[in-house]
Amino acid sequence: MEQYSERLDGLFQAIADPTRRAVLKRLGKGPASISELAKPFDMALPSFMKHIHLLEDSGWIHTRKEGRVRTCVLDRKPFATVEAWLSEQRALWEGRTDRLEAFVTTQQKEEPE
Amino acid sequence: MEQYSERLDGLFQAIADPTRRAVLKRLGKGPASISELAKPFDMALPSFMKHIHLLEDSGWIHTRKEGRVRTCVLDRKPFATVEAWLSEQRALWEGRTDRLEAFVTTQQKEEPE
Repeated sequence: MEQYSERLDGLFQAIADPTRRAVLKRLGKGPASISELAKPFDMALPSFMKHIHLLEDSGWIHTRKEGRVRTCVLDRKPFATVEAWLSEQRALWEGRTDRLEAFVTTQQKEEPE
Repeated sequence: MEQYSERLDGLFQAIADPTRRAVLKRLGKGPASISELAKPFDMALPSFMKHIHLLEDSGWIHTRKEGRVRTCVLDRKPFATVEAWLSEQRALWEGRTDRLEAFVTTQQKEEPE
């Protein structure tokens, strides 16, 4: 549970940044090299690499080096993790709405027509 | 677009913390006062209030003061915003999978049986 919570911290922290979200978006279309990913950003390479490391450490992407080229690949599992968290929250309100509906229905039945 | 991106930054930043996620979870069950929300946490009130302010500033919750009691209420709109972002990403890979399938199907048709 502790590990799951820490993983969520890292996943949400990673996507709380427009550069990192743009990198994920680009990788949604297929793998890309670091230099290709960095191209649209007016940013020094070491700064850009910090974003890449953060995405890799949190689990959103994997990287592999072939010769001199490092290629980045999107991992889809974190999307499922985030979706599961959202569903969990949604289930809470829906349970609440169900309970409210049940209450209202019961009240209506109990009231004389 | 810039505003949307900044809103996403704030929304993801806000949920990148276990205390703030626990507060949202509790509020999913219904509105609660600050003191009720703070109870499960071994935290000084000013520290806890920073979390509440961050949740309010990013748009996840609203608060209203009645007399001496401040009540917090969950806003569901940010969930829809986060879900929309996830769907947007998912559409990218799915488009990619469709293109890959189309390519494979075309190749199979073109190859002699």
